[in-house]
Amino acid sequence: MEQKQILSVYLGAFVDELTKQGVSDVIISPGSRSTPLALLMAENEKINTYLHVDERSAAFFALGMAKAKKKAVAILCTSGTAAANYYPAIIEAYHSRIPLLVLTADRPHELRDVGAPQAMNQLHLFGDFVKVFIETALPEGTERMCHYIRSTAARGVSTSLTVPAGPVHINFPLREPLVPDLTVTDLWDHGILKREQHVDVTRGQKRLSEAQIVDYVSLFTTYRKGLIVCGQQSDERLAEAMVLLSEKTGYPILADPLSGARSGGHKGDHIVECYDTFLRSEAVVESLQPDIIIRFGDSPVSKAFSLYVQKHANALQLIVDEGAQWRDPSLIGAEMVYCNEALFCHDVAEALPTCTDCKWLSTWTELNALTKEQFATIHTYEDLFEGKAIPILQKTLPEGATLFVGNSMPIRDMDTFFEVDQKGITIMANRGVNGIDGTISSALGAGTDGSPLVLFLGDLSFYHDLNGLLMAKLYKLNATIVVMNNDGGGIFSYLPQYAEKKHFEVLFGTPLGLDYEHTVRMYDGHFARVETWNEFESELQRGIHEDGLHVIEMKTDREKNLHMHRTLWNNINDMLTKHITSRERS
Amino acid sequence: MEQKQILSVYLGAFVDELTKQGVSDVIISPGSRSTPLALLMAENEKINTYLHVDERSAAFFALGMAKAKKKAVAILCTSGTAAANYYPAIIEAYHSRIPLLVLTADRPHELRDVGAPQAMNQLHLFGDFVKVFIETALPEGTERMCHYIRSTAARGVSTSLTVPAGPVHINFPLREPLVPDLTVTDLWDHGILKREQHVDVTRGQKRLSEAQIVDYVSLFTTYRKGLIVCGQQSDERLAEAMVLLSEKTGYPILADPLSGARSGGHKGDHIVECYDTFLRSEAVVESLQPDIIIRFGDSPVSKAFSLYVQKHANALQLIVDEGAQWRDPSLIGAEMVYCNEALFCHDVAEALPTCTDCKWLSTWTELNALTKEQFATIHTYEDLFEGKAIPILQKTLPEGATLFVGNSMPIRDMDTFFEVDQKGITIMANRGVNGIDGTISSALGAGTDGSPLVLFLGDLSFYHDLNGLLMAKLYKLNATIVVMNNDGGGIFSYLPQYAEKKHFEVLFGTPLGLDYEHTVRMYDGHFARVETWNEFESELQRGIHEDGLHVIEMKTDREKNLHMHRTLWNNINDMLTKHITSRERS
Repeated sequence: MEQKQILSVYLGAFVDELTKQGVSDVIISPGSRSTPLALLMAENEKINTYLHVDERSAAFFALGMAKAKKKAVAILCTSGTAAANYYPAIIEAYHSRIPLLVLTADRPHELRDVGAPQAMNQLHLFGDFVKVFIETALPEGTERMCHYIRSTAARGVSTSLTVPAGPVHINFPLREPLVPDLTVTDLWDHGILKREQHVDVTRGQKRLSEAQIVDYVSLFTTYRKGLIVCGQQSDERLAEAMVLLSEKTGYPILADPLSGARSGGHKGDHIVECYDTFLRSEAVVESLQPDIIIRFGDSPVSKAFSLYVQKHANALQLIVDEGAQWRDPSLIGAEMVYCNEALFCHDVAEALPTCTDCKWLSTWTELNALTKEQFATIHTYEDLFEGKAIPILQKTLPEGATLFVGNSMPIRDMDTFFEVDQKGITIMANRGVNGIDGTISSALGAGTDGSPLVLFLGDLSFYHDLNGLLMAKLYKLNATIVVMNNDGGGIFSYLPQYAEKKHFEVLFGTPLGLDYEHTVRMYDGHFARVETWNEFESELQRGIHEDGLHVIEMKTDREKNLHMHRTLWNNINDMLTKHITSRERS
Repeated sequence: MEQKQILSVYLGAFVDELTKQGVSDVIISPGSRSTPLALLMAENEKINTYLHVDERSAAFFALGMAKAKKKAVAILCTSGTAAANYYPAIIEAYHSRIPLLVLTADRPHELRDVGAPQAMNQLHLFGDFVKVFIETALPEGTERMCHYIRSTAARGVSTSLTVPAGPVHINFPLREPLVPDLTVTDLWDHGILKREQHVDVTRGQKRLSEAQIVDYVSLFTTYRKGLIVCGQQSDERLAEAMVLLSEKTGYPILADPLSGARSGGHKGDHIVECYDTFLRSEAVVESLQPDIIIRFGDSPVSKAFSLYVQKHANALQLIVDEGAQWRDPSLIGAEMVYCNEALFCHDVAEALPTCTDCKWLSTWTELNALTKEQFATIHTYEDLFEGKAIPILQKTLPEGATLFVGNSMPIRDMDTFFEVDQKGITIMANRGVNGIDGTISSALGAGTDGSPLVLFLGDLSFYHDLNGLLMAKLYKLNATIVVMNNDGGGIFSYLPQYAEKKHFEVLFGTPLGLDYEHTVRMYDGHFARVETWNEFESELQRGIHEDGLHVIEMKTDREKNLHMHRTLWNNINDMLTKHITSRERS
């Protein structure tokens, strides 16, 4: 067999097996060494190829896509620093458990570490941030080696999907010539590539034994003051399962914006979403001594909640995680439960009697309702307060929309102000490592599942991933991006370094003074700078209902924002303190 | 001592020692965890702080600065994916031997791997691409620990500078509170921080023994047909030293554009710079059988040269490298000489008699001259041929300018068309791993040494690092950027995948269709799209002599460019073949 036929047969088998394992999307960054894989993917009808020149953005785009489609997405690049640009997205994928298939072309062994051009050590390039690293053999055209590479594809995809999901790195040493023979007749229908997939993976789920269930039933009937707390997670069944458990236990559900429980078809009356606000009140925290806290998913975004946990260190913490990791930053003692989260809720709820004493639950829902009443006052704010954007967004978004949220202040505002609804809005953020990088790309990737997409983020995150906008132009994606432009790092005003006036603006405020209209135009996007809430709402409507890229910028003032946040919290604190004092007196 | 005083004393000692070891520039990316280091650096008068939101660009800016200033430059960022964005620049620094001091703030041990926000495993984050990884102790205010952290600073800087230079990673676990006490009276003049630096490093250079010199003298007087070949390297003394050696041996100097030998005060008549062109001619390659090749620096850019070496595999190759690495991608056998390159030339040249037989030398210089004559014809080209931009650039650049060159086609065109001159132009490129990333940032960083700066690159490299332009705006840097915009990846037209028409444009041509004028305006730059050579020259003059950022775009056609390159090479090949045939006949 000629070298170009060997490339086709060997790498063609790899690509074919990817499709058989359910991979249908690959983000390719142009390069020479990766040519045979790129061409074979482009030639395969079952694969959608996307192209992005900036590998950093390409990887985040894949991450967002994998997040939204809940399946493995592949990225492909050439040798050299190209692959190193994937690193931030890979780390985020690792920590947020997203199945990413990282495919890198490499120089063959004889060109490594001898000063050959564009050659570097790509073995274990991403360290501990991939679930597995595989260095493939050089292409060979034998049946055995085609089975080997097919098996490698299956193993890569399967490993990325197995709980806890995560990235997998496959490195391909390739020799010149690099152009495969695409004329091998009917490559994917006949001949050496026509084989059924030879590895199929059935995945069981971790489940409690009868005896373990009995223990938890006993625990939950003894401990009456419990909390169900859910941080970022991606299982769509969990919200409903937690509701079941809550109904039986009488434990309220503290639902993080990324829990999937704030917006959806499940019953919402046990769900408490304003805890980030009311747990800022000392009086409230004092009055709410829990016996037990059952945690699902990542640690919640809310700092008030984590201080609350620290304050009540005697409460028993159950940390349920099928991924069997160690999700306890509180360090105050916990019981790890390695079990599928939804099955845990179902199995235990089924065995539990329904709770009849609803006092604990109603204390929480009452505080929640009182806080919401105060939130209602922000509708009267005329000033451009970042928090007010959330209820307007929530009202305007259509059912089933995806709301991608930037880190730093936007996700915190979302936590504070996004109220429980039934619209089935999927809220997403890169909360694995909470970076401000790759946000535009991740959001655009998430939008490829076909749902209406709104991205809500600050100007530094927007700036960091401007290159991400390229995908909107090249693939005519529909997206509305809301940029809260306070010309710099808003979050730092909430932190102690704010007191350090001398260097604050230069090091933390970091005003860039950029007019993003220019860049948005370069990407054929529509740009609107809004100055009133009416304008904001109508531009939102326009963005959501018109095709293409829409960027809405709202210029806000960091000082004023800080002041409005603080005033609101102070008012709520006063109100709640009075409420609790009067309740205790009565 | 209070925690904030401990921060000042301990981290202040670190920062103070950096300055004592000669570090005067730090590029900071905003973040919370890195607050104490950022504030202490901003407070230190001996340190210039630069701020960049995008850590990827920040690191490349530092790389360019370290390259130009020939000293260690530090970068500082917060915990999480921020640091991962440094990876491409770190890899480039490692392979191009640039002293980069990578400082990352980290969560303390108790917040690692427990799901704490923005925490990830930063130990050995950059794998084998740093010369040393140091995890520092948590800040303590004792004298011993201040000595420890001061010693760590000295060690970090020293390791980064020791041949082969390269990046060093120091990771700082830090606990809240993160704001140091800047009021500690006269922190850097009195008290605990006032100490002379307590580690000073004297570095010797590897030098041949008398006996070894005698061996090489004997070798060079026996082998008459030799070549001195120099790739990328940064020792300013080497060009003159190679000229000395060449005068004694009669070996021509094949000087890569990044060798530092194409432009400068040394004598140029032994320097051959057109080998990339004339070694494309089979007849020429056949006629030039060398006995010995002495290589300095990286492998040269020229592929024609590396094929020439392969063709004459019997020639003895000496690879001189004080960095003691393995710079031989030819794999055909070589003698490694671990010795300071300039000292090697001096010591051997001093012991050598002057060569009297200049036939071999004149054969090379004659071919070089003939090729140059042909190059002169491109002055008559009216079409926008990318190669013609180089002589115009070279003519227009003032003495002592820095010419930073993008990878892919621009560096190859530079290799082909930049002729030896006496202007002392420093040509730079990121040739460690040849990435298209970070080019704008690297160039702007290189320009901070005060020399007039021109960056010459293609549109994909320009696109990849658009964020890099921020530095020009924030720090009012003077720079002229020439973008050869062929709307995509020009280099691929020269490679075999060009034959694969079906997917070529999508996967390799990758036209982005972006109007960069928008972005340049966002950064307050002046943008000019030139359509004639006169316009090009006058915009170049303007860019070089006016303050601020100037971007000159020349739209070229990939097809036409390919054709013009090929025609030129074919003409030269015909001419040289005739020349050699007639010479052999006579």
